Amino acid sequence: MAKTKVVVTRQLIDKAQRLLDAKKEHLEVVQWQSEKPCPRSWLLENAKGASGILVMLTDKVDEELLETAGSQLKAIASFSVGTDHVDRNALKQRNVRLGYTPTCLTDAVADLTIMLILMAQRRGGESMTKVAKGEWPQMPWHPLLMTGPQIRGSTIGFLGFGRIAQASLQRLLPFGIKKVIYLTSKPGKPVKEDHFGLIQNATIPIEPASSTEQLAKDSDVVVVGCALTPDTKHLVSTDFFAKMKKLAVIVNIARGPIIDTDALVKALDQEQIFGAGLDVIENEPNITADHPILKQPRAVLVPHIGSATIETREQMATESVKNLLAGLTGEQMINELEL
Amino acid sequence: MAKTKVVVTRQLIDKAQRLLDAKKEHLEVVQWQSEKPCPRSWLLENAKGASGILVMLTDKVDEELLETAGSQLKAIASFSVGTDHVDRNALKQRNVRLGYTPTCLTDAVADLTIMLILMAQRRGGESMTKVAKGEWPQMPWHPLLMTGPQIRGSTIGFLGFGRIAQASLQRLLPFGIKKVIYLTSKPGKPVKEDHFGLIQNATIPIEPASSTEQLAKDSDVVVVGCALTPDTKHLVSTDFFAKMKKLAVIVNIARGPIIDTDALVKALDQEQIFGAGLDVIENEPNITADHPILKQPRAVLVPHIGSATIETREQMATESVKNLLAGLTGEQMINELEL
Repeated sequence: MAKTKVVVTRQLIDKAQRLLDAKKEHLEVVQWQSEKPCPRSWLLENAKGASGILVMLTDKVDEELLETAGSQLKAIASFSVGTDHVDRNALKQRNVRLGYTPTCLTDAVADLTIMLILMAQRRGGESMTKVAKGEWPQMPWHPLLMTGPQIRGSTIGFLGFGRIAQASLQRLLPFGIKKVIYLTSKPGKPVKEDHFGLIQNATIPIEPASSTEQLAKDSDVVVVGCALTPDTKHLVSTDFFAKMKKLAVIVNIARGPIIDTDALVKALDQEQIFGAGLDVIENEPNITADHPILKQPRAVLVPHIGSATIETREQMATESVKNLLAGLTGEQMINELEL
Repeated sequence: MAKTKVVVTRQLIDKAQRLLDAKKEHLEVVQWQSEKPCPRSWLLENAKGASGILVMLTDKVDEELLETAGSQLKAIASFSVGTDHVDRNALKQRNVRLGYTPTCLTDAVADLTIMLILMAQRRGGESMTKVAKGEWPQMPWHPLLMTGPQIRGSTIGFLGFGRIAQASLQRLLPFGIKKVIYLTSKPGKPVKEDHFGLIQNATIPIEPASSTEQLAKDSDVVVVGCALTPDTKHLVSTDFFAKMKKLAVIVNIARGPIIDTDALVKALDQEQIFGAGLDVIENEPNITADHPILKQPRAVLVPHIGSATIETREQMATESVKNLLAGLTGEQMINELEL
């Protein structure tokens, strides 16, 4: 009997690779070997006859790939929290299951959210860059040198209030924040899921905002943590920034296009807001050195490293392999997206 | 009757300046007006006959200044938490009181400590710099790209466990740290002061380390928060780094000379440790662009901005003026250093 064929578009981290290798008695594993992303042509060629494909965020899963693979294809396991790269309708029509890894990166992204808030308020990027350029000796001390707003007493506004936002809030509480407001797709309505019991055990107000305007107006820190949908694209634009406080900062750990980059650059340039911390940006990763956001000293931009901890990536790899194997045998995946 | 003369080496922030101006009926206030630090010659010339002097960290208070001022001098009010710039013995001999502002910056420094820990672990400086240089488009995604260690499950080692260290710990708890060890001048002995009730209400072990070696060996994050004394100068040097874990990071929010910079550069260069976050460094602010620490991508260096929040600097200014006025009238200062 021929072995079941699976395609894996990456070398995996130790533990995950061993998990996969242990199945080689029953599986024909075709795996891309280089450190660079696998070319589309390689994926298409090798997908033929595969029963399962383990893909990265950079591999497009579309009609063409499914058609090429053939009707025996049972499962796609994506090494990612997002599934923008997957044509869910095409999968549904062919009855192919989709596994992904949404939960294990909560800690890593929440940690990075705190880093970006503090860097935006305390001018982490700006001051580091000045030192790196050798400007410290020419920065005579004065009482307001390199000062930024303090987080104690702040109102934190969450655009989107899911698991990652709530994990970020959990970390922010001992910083002495005063109030939390959040906006979901149902303005004014309390969220149903209280992932860490923070709302139930609240010692400060944690309340739904009535509108985007209220969130912009009242927040000292805005955390963008909602999903990207047609409704949230450019949700944060000129009007939003115009309503923000002059000493407020904004952080985006969700998806780039939720913030209108041109409007953000203008808001920073005209000192409508104090600073910004971005893990994501429109058109990433095609951000060249002449990009206008990089001319703004009060903007910190890191290259989508939200989930980039060793522990999280190991866990994502392991869960992806488990999802792939479960998809082949019809067992329950660790996380399966309903199509 | 001649007014009492006071010298102030800076323009102060609004509220503090108003507090001082309100006393001008009784005080002759001689105040340096420029944004730059006042020259030594100006200070010496104007100190003559002063009963109180409000100084910055950059103004040296020594035998020469006290002698020049004269025997009517009652108080020095320093706008600072540190008093390295003050010759305490000289003050004691002349019975001059010393006010300073040690307490109001706890929050600001603790916040910055968390920023530096996260930047060191999550490669905040390194990844930001890569993006700024336009390297993002050439960074093909792979599972371990720009990953760093995760803070959940970490052991945090505090070198010095005073108010700022404990405030930092308070912020770290919801990140899921596993254990805390600390070293004071009495190794193995529990600290007396539990500033925020963290030890009393601990849900994780918070224990004194038996030695510097143990602290180096067991910590995933080392926070340097002790005072600079002859005993702590270069306390963190080659031996210390050799004992640290490969994935550990070190953060210094205390005083530069506690860490031997050459040894730190070598430890980073040889990948003995994962990263470093520094608010202070030996020979600051004379750090030019060719300084070897700036060649280390995993080192983040910011220009001594621990207390640099608007709120804290306003409060420091106000407390300095109150200390000055209390020093003139013999009343209790908000914080007076015992000489």
